[in-house]
Amino acid sequence: MASGAGMIEFWYEFASTYSYPAAMRVERLAKAAGVELRWKPFLLGPIFGAQGWNDSPFNIYAAKGRYMWKDLTRICAAEDIPLEKPFKFPQNGLKAARLALVAGERIGDFTRAVYTANFAEQKDIADEATLTDIVTKLGMDAEATFEAANTPENKAALKAQTDEAIKRDIFGAPWFFVGDEPFWGNDRLEDAIKWAKK
Amino acid sequence: MASGAGMIEFWYEFASTYSYPAAMRVERLAKAAGVELRWKPFLLGPIFGAQGWNDSPFNIYAAKGRYMWKDLTRICAAEDIPLEKPFKFPQNGLKAARLALVAGERIGDFTRAVYTANFAEQKDIADEATLTDIVTKLGMDAEATFEAANTPENKAALKAQTDEAIKRDIFGAPWFFVGDEPFWGNDRLEDAIKWAKK
Repeated sequence: MASGAGMIEFWYEFASTYSYPAAMRVERLAKAAGVELRWKPFLLGPIFGAQGWNDSPFNIYAAKGRYMWKDLTRICAAEDIPLEKPFKFPQNGLKAARLALVAGERIGDFTRAVYTANFAEQKDIADEATLTDIVTKLGMDAEATFEAANTPENKAALKAQTDEAIKRDIFGAPWFFVGDEPFWGNDRLEDAIKWAKK
Repeated sequence: MASGAGMIEFWYEFASTYSYPAAMRVERLAKAAGVELRWKPFLLGPIFGAQGWNDSPFNIYAAKGRYMWKDLTRICAAEDIPLEKPFKFPQNGLKAARLALVAGERIGDFTRAVYTANFAEQKDIADEATLTDIVTKLGMDAEATFEAANTPENKAALKAQTDEAIKRDIFGAPWFFVGDEPFWGNDRLEDAIKWAKK
């Protein structure tokens, strides 16, 4: 892999709680630092499955879950990011991730809208109505976008992206790569940006 | 529990990697902020056991372990804290924790010396020779200190401290409490200090 100087990859899963503040902040911070940003949606399910988990670790380990919601509340308050506990956790981000992959230049706006639906608006992000509404409000052609998202090629592309995540030792989200230098967690966003500026 | 304004509790386990930079920093930061510090050694073993782990999660989840050592290396470099991967991980911190509980006003110095032995000097902190050396260099009476550490009352006190950790939903280390406000991880030390100053 070539040096990642000047470029940051943002790996995220739409169900992931700490990916929410990261998604809302990453483009602003990258732009301010003059760092190129690549959006990398992927699925945590297969990765957690390989660790023996069939649910979010925040549900499996109850004390960890209670702490996470408190911590996330503090983080969002400090960053002025609205937060309402989702009606269901974790939500299924599969459809949203497929749409993100075909969103082209709108991927940042689409990603933030899906996270907002999930973590601020208590909407069901696995529901096509929610996603159609988001795509339409962004001025995208909903029918064409869904068609592109559901091609076998695009489904394979999301699977390939998740396989790449596994191969590159990603075990959680959000995750940042600067070249091959890994940064795990919303807490490491600033460090990753600094690394990319080197 | 009364308000914790002006006071921070630092909960730590001598085997815990991220407790190392926290232990080396906490007293300096608390002093600078005019915040009272309480040292709270405890054992993570029973807590991890209750989560179904009989080893450090950094050993159970290999990718997480690889990332942690890289992340810890970056953190220690940024803070000018020496780091050499321990000859064994995790080490058994039971004897050191019992000694910490009877170290009185020397608990900060003793704690930093044990972490340094573990994470910078590749020493065996379960070995009484290592611990005797630390206690002696601090000018403490080794024989009397070991005798106090090994009384049934002190063994029970460490068990009670670990039970309190479980009761208060502590699931990892380092951990900070400001009153009942919980902060998990070296990354949250600054936030916890800020909270204590409120």
